[in-house]
Amino acid sequence: MTARLYLYDTTLRDGQQTQGVQFSTPEKIRIAGMLDRLGMDYIEGGWPGANPTDSAFFDAAPATRATLTAFGMTKRAGVSAENDDVLAAVTNAGTPAVCLVGKTHDFHVTTALGISLDDNVDNISRSVAHLVAQGREALFDAEHFFDGWKANRAYALSCLQAALTAGARWIVLCDTNGGTLPVEIHDIVAEVISAGIPGDRLGIHTHNDTANAVAGSLAAVDAGARQIQGTLNGLGERCGNANLVTLLPILLLKEPYASAYETGVAKEALKGLVTVSRQLDDILNRVPTKQAPFVGASAFAHKAGLHASAILKDPTTYEHVDPSLVGNERVIPMSNQAGQSNLRRRLADAGLEVEKGDPALSAILNEVKRREDQGYTYDSAQASFELLARRALGQMPRFFEVERYRVTVERRKDETGTVRSYSEAVVVVDVDGEKRLSVAESLETSEQDSGPVDALSRALAKDLGKYQDLIAEVRLVDFKVRITHGGTGAVTRVIIDSEDGQGQRWSTVGVSANIIDASFEALLDALSWKLLHAHAALLDAPAAD
Amino acid sequence: MTARLYLYDTTLRDGQQTQGVQFSTPEKIRIAGMLDRLGMDYIEGGWPGANPTDSAFFDAAPATRATLTAFGMTKRAGVSAENDDVLAAVTNAGTPAVCLVGKTHDFHVTTALGISLDDNVDNISRSVAHLVAQGREALFDAEHFFDGWKANRAYALSCLQAALTAGARWIVLCDTNGGTLPVEIHDIVAEVISAGIPGDRLGIHTHNDTANAVAGSLAAVDAGARQIQGTLNGLGERCGNANLVTLLPILLLKEPYASAYETGVAKEALKGLVTVSRQLDDILNRVPTKQAPFVGASAFAHKAGLHASAILKDPTTYEHVDPSLVGNERVIPMSNQAGQSNLRRRLADAGLEVEKGDPALSAILNEVKRREDQGYTYDSAQASFELLARRALGQMPRFFEVERYRVTVERRKDETGTVRSYSEAVVVVDVDGEKRLSVAESLETSEQDSGPVDALSRALAKDLGKYQDLIAEVRLVDFKVRITHGGTGAVTRVIIDSEDGQGQRWSTVGVSANIIDASFEALLDALSWKLLHAHAALLDAPAAD
Repeated sequence: MTARLYLYDTTLRDGQQTQGVQFSTPEKIRIAGMLDRLGMDYIEGGWPGANPTDSAFFDAAPATRATLTAFGMTKRAGVSAENDDVLAAVTNAGTPAVCLVGKTHDFHVTTALGISLDDNVDNISRSVAHLVAQGREALFDAEHFFDGWKANRAYALSCLQAALTAGARWIVLCDTNGGTLPVEIHDIVAEVISAGIPGDRLGIHTHNDTANAVAGSLAAVDAGARQIQGTLNGLGERCGNANLVTLLPILLLKEPYASAYETGVAKEALKGLVTVSRQLDDILNRVPTKQAPFVGASAFAHKAGLHASAILKDPTTYEHVDPSLVGNERVIPMSNQAGQSNLRRRLADAGLEVEKGDPALSAILNEVKRREDQGYTYDSAQASFELLARRALGQMPRFFEVERYRVTVERRKDETGTVRSYSEAVVVVDVDGEKRLSVAESLETSEQDSGPVDALSRALAKDLGKYQDLIAEVRLVDFKVRITHGGTGAVTRVIIDSEDGQGQRWSTVGVSANIIDASFEALLDALSWKLLHAHAALLDAPAAD
Repeated sequence: MTARLYLYDTTLRDGQQTQGVQFSTPEKIRIAGMLDRLGMDYIEGGWPGANPTDSAFFDAAPATRATLTAFGMTKRAGVSAENDDVLAAVTNAGTPAVCLVGKTHDFHVTTALGISLDDNVDNISRSVAHLVAQGREALFDAEHFFDGWKANRAYALSCLQAALTAGARWIVLCDTNGGTLPVEIHDIVAEVISAGIPGDRLGIHTHNDTANAVAGSLAAVDAGARQIQGTLNGLGERCGNANLVTLLPILLLKEPYASAYETGVAKEALKGLVTVSRQLDDILNRVPTKQAPFVGASAFAHKAGLHASAILKDPTTYEHVDPSLVGNERVIPMSNQAGQSNLRRRLADAGLEVEKGDPALSAILNEVKRREDQGYTYDSAQASFELLARRALGQMPRFFEVERYRVTVERRKDETGTVRSYSEAVVVVDVDGEKRLSVAESLETSEQDSGPVDALSRALAKDLGKYQDLIAEVRLVDFKVRITHGGTGAVTRVIIDSEDGQGQRWSTVGVSANIIDASFEALLDALSWKLLHAHAALLDAPAAD
């Protein structure tokens, strides 16, 4: 016998409270589609009337299998539910479900709202009844519930009962401050159920202020709650909301939850979890969190030499779930601690089979170590790692050589008096003994990233002779810069992500005290890697040193 | 009656398993000092003999109030504890305490070690007895304990009993795979105690693979365990270890823990928690996690307009602890959702008092909005925000104006045939109607960051006439670059942190499709902000547009 757990996503509403996050309407529509395909039961789209973006989203509301839900607050005192214009804006969005937040903590009722405790109960009751009368599914978000329960249990309970009696499908217990610890959440949810609110009408809404948002949600489910509210990637006010990207695999893959509950999310959909998480980061221009549970690039990375060699024998030794179930991959990163078994595994990933005990292995390890000391990192620049290894193995063809380059950025007034920038790069390369000079410019008006790195990239890729066709469609899709330390002082590390016409993506690294040199090194590696893989026949080119 | 909880830090050992983390010996010594001042009971310094850095750390071991602990593994089968050279390297470090990891999961004993179950118990027993005979405090890390308990309870228990009987002070239950959920950790710890291992001899070691490392530690304490192992900032293999930076304020400030337990950490020391967390990030060249509980820049940031106005009335309305108790600060960030109360608060932080209802407020909000659409962010660039606001309020003096600049980077062979880079910048400024041309170069040999931004920074700061003395000691201390989106395409956002001779630090932002232009804009703001604050008398300079 499994119980049904309902998943309620509030990425588009509470998630938007994250510092630095502001979704556009098209982004909201795209995210709603992602959530719907994942199998959420409810998608909270925003607060109609509170801001133009949210209103526009509901005007253009996509058709979803999930129940689209509008968020708002209970009616104000002194006006009827029918005549409250804030509430009207919410119901006018026409969604099948509406979630209204209301106070349940006596202190907030008297201090923040400045109304009587009875008036607040009446507001809850009449607002919910108004939704039900309109044929909507009504949800009641009990704000500050846990603090309210601890301060005045009878009053907090009377607020829940008012919503329930008025016909609310769900009463959601919100830990608005994020301060209630899992053991308390468990006990209070159990007490609420004992007091007469059925568990299958109770939801939980937690925040991550003590790093316990996921644990608090699970504790509420353990105690009998049957709806979980959360967000993708744990977006949300302050430290964020409960992270659904973490909760989904726990609920579907891990005991004691997988056997006890079922959700609207199919196991098959979980395989898209890494993609969903990264797509949201892309929309937000955020660097994905490496250490994120299940979906992070490090979540299945085995750095310790002992772990790595055990993993090669049997993955279950150090992995609590199979990474492929959530669309993730096992990683055996390079590092000072990495043993040769790590390295052989990583080389095999790059298609390079090297025998155990081959002296080239320690030569590669030493070279990686030497470069890591200078500030390079190969954890996230697999393409540069492959080139390094091929050079050490004498398996790297010499396609071309750069003799010199020069790049100039000038900012001044143009003939019309407008201040403009001009970037120009000259690159001199030697292809098969033939010298080729290329010049390119990058103008401020370009739709793409413009400036010196773009100019260098264009000049470098302008004329590589017989290799030209192979790199024609390569483009720079991301560019990350960090000041780091290596050798005697600060250096700049540039990681470039490149893409070709077939959607293939690869990452390269460059390090220098000079940001332009570091960028150029990463650009060079990017083109070299593409040339290497573009055509097997190229492997017949003469080997470099 | 409060029980004593012991805190065991493994930042220097398990924390070093983080992808991309490799501490140097001086860094280890510095971190050990931070941990000791914080009040940790145990500091695990590493595995002597496993790598040169760890051995060097113990050779130079700092004097600590905390019990310095060396990590290793139980002796191998077929050799006595006295003759095991791996174990000898560990004990030779001469620390008062030694923690040895050993197997307790039957599958790992037979598969990974390839020895009999009895031999493994014997290895545990003799290794611990060997430590005790040397007068060391012995700790036993029971690897994969929870999985082992579920697979073969009797065997797992016999391993713990062997260690206990041999004289181990602590038996640490390790959830090595990170896959055990808090409810299971609670139940298994309770069962272990029922089976005869005293709770005040039990420790807990969790990983964050399900985002429950903190919750799992608390669940073990709830069940009776009395030692917690964790790391600063949750460093560690895969998704990290239990984060002591989160656990400390929970244990000291929050119920039901604060009243039930005492630790070796003083409440006063917690006020340095943000500093400790940031110092570690600095050592690792990591960008601090904004959403980190308690210590993140967003942990007490109130974005929602409703929250922000309630916070202004009474901070306890939306804060679960006082941010000053952990050395953090309340933040009312700018954003599209921010109301005028947010803005006035933020202006007040910059020393700008603007009356409620002043039309300048909506002018500033609109300007912030317009620039955020272009890719600017003011959440983390308070100095640029202040300049924007002052310009809108007509309170920004015009110190100087840049007429034009040009920067060139050239990479070529020098007269000796060595490939070298040369960066040169020309900046033309107008100070009080007088044109000043400055040229500066940045050489690859510089100890500081070199290259075009450095050259521009030097040229810009070379001759600002009468303002020159005020900016003499300004230096660029961090430089962050992100590709973001604004308007019609990708743009580059640069955030520069600057510092002056008095240790004052401030952040400015620049945005452009051209990385050099974006950097220059942030550099300009950095100098303007310094000039503004350097001398009150400067406020008499003529106001700009």
